[in-house]
Amino acid sequence: MNNIFIIGVGLIGGSFALDIKKLYPTTTIYGIDKNEAHLDEAVKLGVIDEKATLKDVLNADFVILAIPVDATLKVLPDVLDYISDNTIVFDAGSTKEDICIKVKAHPKRRNYLAVHPIAGTEYSGPSAAIHGLYKNKTNIICEVEETAFKLQEKALKLFSELGMRIRYMNPKAHDKHIAYVSHLSHISSFMLGKTVIEKEKNDRDIFDMAGSGFESTVRLAKSSPAMWTPIFEQNKTNVIETLDEYITNLKHFKKLMEDDDFEGVYKEMETTNRLTDILNGIQ
Amino acid sequence: MNNIFIIGVGLIGGSFALDIKKLYPTTTIYGIDKNEAHLDEAVKLGVIDEKATLKDVLNADFVILAIPVDATLKVLPDVLDYISDNTIVFDAGSTKEDICIKVKAHPKRRNYLAVHPIAGTEYSGPSAAIHGLYKNKTNIICEVEETAFKLQEKALKLFSELGMRIRYMNPKAHDKHIAYVSHLSHISSFMLGKTVIEKEKNDRDIFDMAGSGFESTVRLAKSSPAMWTPIFEQNKTNVIETLDEYITNLKHFKKLMEDDDFEGVYKEMETTNRLTDILNGIQ
Repeated sequence: MNNIFIIGVGLIGGSFALDIKKLYPTTTIYGIDKNEAHLDEAVKLGVIDEKATLKDVLNADFVILAIPVDATLKVLPDVLDYISDNTIVFDAGSTKEDICIKVKAHPKRRNYLAVHPIAGTEYSGPSAAIHGLYKNKTNIICEVEETAFKLQEKALKLFSELGMRIRYMNPKAHDKHIAYVSHLSHISSFMLGKTVIEKEKNDRDIFDMAGSGFESTVRLAKSSPAMWTPIFEQNKTNVIETLDEYITNLKHFKKLMEDDDFEGVYKEMETTNRLTDILNGIQ
Repeated sequence: MNNIFIIGVGLIGGSFALDIKKLYPTTTIYGIDKNEAHLDEAVKLGVIDEKATLKDVLNADFVILAIPVDATLKVLPDVLDYISDNTIVFDAGSTKEDICIKVKAHPKRRNYLAVHPIAGTEYSGPSAAIHGLYKNKTNIICEVEETAFKLQEKALKLFSELGMRIRYMNPKAHDKHIAYVSHLSHISSFMLGKTVIEKEKNDRDIFDMAGSGFESTVRLAKSSPAMWTPIFEQNKTNVIETLDEYITNLKHFKKLMEDDDFEGVYKEMETTNRLTDILNGIQ
């Protein structure tokens, strides 16, 4: 592996850069980003070796796109235009259907692998990049059959070296399921944060009374609006469906309380407690 | 300090026991619990020194009630009946108005301090008890003026030794504010868990696709229904108000998406991002 191009040197791209550099110390890591300040910061932090532009990707071994999903729709076709036959390009976006449709007929479709690593933190930018972000994390690959076998192998080798486990899925199923376990969580967290902020005009009260439980529940409300807005836009139909069901469940819980049916309230919680078993499996 | 009685040897009571024993190694820690198995477990784990019954509290230095808030309403008056003039009793319940009303006219009211330590985890039972749970946590004290000054001093000394910071509040304000930063978070988390469980009939999908973000958001859905049901019951009016506002905010977010107003979606998230600053203050 001689060189790797990271497009978008934030949390996701930067964390790939750090771990790949550790695995392959002689590889040159090039960074591409429309935010020049981020590029400089990434060089300074040692996240990337050198700054580059899109046209430099011709002889890349790997190109990793880690930019907002609306930008990926625009940039990926250009990247595929520029690369050589031996380059493998993957993205890391949280929606997969639109991007797969977008490049379906591209002559270099077989150089692209549609990827969604289920990894991240609530922070963003080059300084958010960390070592080991992908270790023991699930990596969802969509439409694997559309990617050239030799290039699949190259990517799978890297994912394996990063410690990821692979799961294959079609883009439609991916977008539907991820709406439940990721996109909805972000909205519930943002709206919880909003509700509390609106009420507690005096921040001091939040500061004093909020414990670790609240903090955990609103952690995702720190996430980047620039990254999340296009995700909600691309996955609109699925996300609205999850929101409908979530709101229905909340209303039902409220109704139980209004009716003084606290046996019902107890049962609601007891049933959901089995998440414990499910989540223990995640760790 | 010669002896301390912990009523309810679970996460909250057990964690008090562990830290007090560390501060005062010669003190005898007695445990009282209607769950005999929990008592035996607490002795075995070294959380308490000895099992006891309510009637033994006569010569207690401290009595700490850490049981569900409905049980506190029943047990606290009995405890006050049994204690001596020098005993200080405090509870750790998440609602404060009902309990303060309940013991308002009790002849031993001045031996009781209404306390809510903002600390905990999603686990329960004696095995959930941990050292240092209360360090750097906020401890809300209600109606402090109703407690005998000498006994206040005794309790404050202990809280200070445990590393807690104190905030005084009236019971009504406590219950109103805590509904936002604690009770609502629990419901949002339980209902998020329910929504995902209902959809993903196949647990395997949740297991594979859920990341740390989801896990953080549904962490509180592991909480004990036995503890939380009476909290929601006692704080019904406030909790329903927070639920109304939360549901309204979620509906508004959905409406913005349905109207393709993604600039509006962006702004919703951007505004809430300032939670970051508020939460940074908590840590």
